[in-house]
Amino acid sequence: MKLYDMEFSGNCYKIRLFCALLGLSYETIPVELLKGEHKTASFLALNPRGQVPVLDDAGSVVWDSMAILVYLARKYGNEQWLPTEPEPLARVMQWLAVSENEILYGLARARAVARFNRPWDLAACQELGRSGLAVLENHLRHKPWLAADHPTIADVACYPYAALAPEGGVALDGFPSIGQWIARVQALPGYVGMPGL
Amino acid sequence: MKLYDMEFSGNCYKIRLFCALLGLSYETIPVELLKGEHKTASFLALNPRGQVPVLDDAGSVVWDSMAILVYLARKYGNEQWLPTEPEPLARVMQWLAVSENEILYGLARARAVARFNRPWDLAACQELGRSGLAVLENHLRHKPWLAADHPTIADVACYPYAALAPEGGVALDGFPSIGQWIARVQALPGYVGMPGL
Repeated sequence: MKLYDMEFSGNCYKIRLFCALLGLSYETIPVELLKGEHKTASFLALNPRGQVPVLDDAGSVVWDSMAILVYLARKYGNEQWLPTEPEPLARVMQWLAVSENEILYGLARARAVARFNRPWDLAACQELGRSGLAVLENHLRHKPWLAADHPTIADVACYPYAALAPEGGVALDGFPSIGQWIARVQALPGYVGMPGL
Repeated sequence: MKLYDMEFSGNCYKIRLFCALLGLSYETIPVELLKGEHKTASFLALNPRGQVPVLDDAGSVVWDSMAILVYLARKYGNEQWLPTEPEPLARVMQWLAVSENEILYGLARARAVARFNRPWDLAACQELGRSGLAVLENHLRHKPWLAADHPTIADVACYPYAALAPEGGVALDGFPSIGQWIARVQALPGYVGMPGL
């Protein structure tokens, strides 16, 4: 299994973290975004969106972090990480949607503005991100994990950019239940961190 | 089954369209966004994000259009709409991710700026949206549907805001394969439209 990867990408880290939690080994292929390697013809043949991460599992190529999490969970995980029944599956999907919306377009974008000089409106990203954190906080006040009474790929998808929020100027002080959930994620067997975490 | 709905929302329309394709009937509960009904305590108890659509299926409440599509496909659809095997499932998830990213934060936001005076950067949204359309166009040049050789919820999720792109000032003239795919969607048995489509 090969992972086209970039160290500082929270989306790539989701896959590194999930592989670590599942005990899966893989070969890392670093993609130099600063050199534009993600926009070369050979990389675009792997992923037409020109983004990392991309997974190549013995020739099955999957792009997009959310799709890769679902692929790995279904292929190498068990019902714990991604249920098959409609309602438990929908619970996971709800939080995957939050990870793609408030968290990605709020918190991750705010971090990308602050750290990588991306051109987005920092205040608007922070506000969207905080709205997502408020939803998480409210939920985690009464539940240990996002989508079930045990961790699922919803937690793996939401955790990185939520925990990295301070890098985008969004403090986590006002979100104590998120702080406890972050500690629970970090205590999972096999957990690995990334720069900043 | 009850659908908390708003007529002009492409995200709500995804659910109305998929119910029509599955032959499912439901009760519509209009939510008056202009009156702020989506931010009332009773609505936030249904969906903590304060957004439509929300589905209430005999007490099972699911929020978020992507999660609702997955729920309905798994509960009332069949393998055609949402496969269970890892790789075919990942193919659907890839395009659901596009629907949540380039399409929602590009095309749908551009439409919201143009039609509903939302405060986002129109040119940046249009550019992101066009990058998503380019990926769709490239894929649909060789395939009739996004994630399989038949329609899946990936098509249902990507279709509305792709087809509504001109309302956000993004012309579809340069995307002939998307135009043919739109016609294929509109020819599906049970298809229903929405204002603008």
